[in-house]
Amino acid sequence: MAEEVKVFGRWTSPFCCRVEIALRLKGVPYEYIEEDLSNKSPLLLEYNPVHKKVPVLVHGGKPIAESLVVLEYIEETWRRNPILPEDPHRRAMARFWTKFIDEKCMPIMWKSLWSEGEMQLKLMEETKENLSILERELNSKKFFGGNSIGLVDIAASFLSCWTEVLQEVAGISLFGEAKHPILFKWANEFMSSDAVKVCLPPKDELLSHFRAMKEGMSATKAGQN
Amino acid sequence: MAEEVKVFGRWTSPFCCRVEIALRLKGVPYEYIEEDLSNKSPLLLEYNPVHKKVPVLVHGGKPIAESLVVLEYIEETWRRNPILPEDPHRRAMARFWTKFIDEKCMPIMWKSLWSEGEMQLKLMEETKENLSILERELNSKKFFGGNSIGLVDIAASFLSCWTEVLQEVAGISLFGEAKHPILFKWANEFMSSDAVKVCLPPKDELLSHFRAMKEGMSATKAGQN
Repeated sequence: MAEEVKVFGRWTSPFCCRVEIALRLKGVPYEYIEEDLSNKSPLLLEYNPVHKKVPVLVHGGKPIAESLVVLEYIEETWRRNPILPEDPHRRAMARFWTKFIDEKCMPIMWKSLWSEGEMQLKLMEETKENLSILERELNSKKFFGGNSIGLVDIAASFLSCWTEVLQEVAGISLFGEAKHPILFKWANEFMSSDAVKVCLPPKDELLSHFRAMKEGMSATKAGQN
Repeated sequence: MAEEVKVFGRWTSPFCCRVEIALRLKGVPYEYIEEDLSNKSPLLLEYNPVHKKVPVLVHGGKPIAESLVVLEYIEETWRRNPILPEDPHRRAMARFWTKFIDEKCMPIMWKSLWSEGEMQLKLMEETKENLSILERELNSKKFFGGNSIGLVDIAASFLSCWTEVLQEVAGISLFGEAKHPILFKWANEFMSSDAVKVCLPPKDELLSHFRAMKEGMSATKAGQN
């Protein structure tokens, strides 16, 4: 009972997916609890009163929020199949790139998908440049973590099915084999790994979800005009 | 030579101050190199090509950027006088609050200082609420880290002399003994600690710096009208 592991998540979220991938890489069994974000459960609000967001990992009754904080916790609690290298400088580099993904790559890509006109062009350029920076970091390695999946790979999960689906919904092109061949090869390698593929949402359902979300956004904008 | 420690910083930055405090807590000697941010040195651009920002810690010739990444590196490299607890759940909580400070508290407080009208009132309310959340977390402890200064205390350095000076420059009140008595007591305790007080910039010089910065902002706005 004390060691029970639960994940409060949402199937559409790449942040929640990170937690599941890390647990599967470590071979830690867990119970997954799907949250309805338009009607959050009392348990989620109790476990993450500050942000009221998923994912939350609950281990032996103790909750931890924020996906990157959860990943560090998983690494420190279950030491097998490490997702961080041993050397402090290489650990720092992994944390640096993870932060770059969370604070630059993802928010700018997200904005580029839903903006319009000049602003969209500017954000698309920035996104492509950020992906090129990641591509240069990956270079000749199989994974950011070297020969096996590590913290940076897990943080970059959104470059798997999410980016493909979101580009289709937004009708723009940001990431693909021609533009970022090394990163594209990485995404395929990553998606086909055993621990990862079982955690990824079905592409057609993800497409329906984001199409509906885009319709919602358009309806809101039309209502404001 | 291999173990030489350098810090590239800017005296006005609470992010740079974090790195110096951590090194002093650990008793690690270092050379401090002041950067002119309007004319960044070739070395800074070489060491932090992605963000081109201070602080950068260089240890044995290897650079590390991003203050929170640097703090984790310092903790893992020099284990004496730990700034993180041993227990994984308590470590996760420290990282959670540090992230809260960096992603919520500081950016919203910063915006509240330089905005106007209704927007400023809204951001001021949010800032006060965020500080109340921090105050509840601190509760009856001397420091966020317990009896000694830890990661969260170091991350919260901006609540020492910076907040006092910035409130004066902006002419608004966000943080003080009446509103947040526990956090205010903590700030005084923190500022008077031996490792901290030598790292803090002189208050009058900080005041002159931010007054000049505000004048610059006003001149830019006037030029745009």
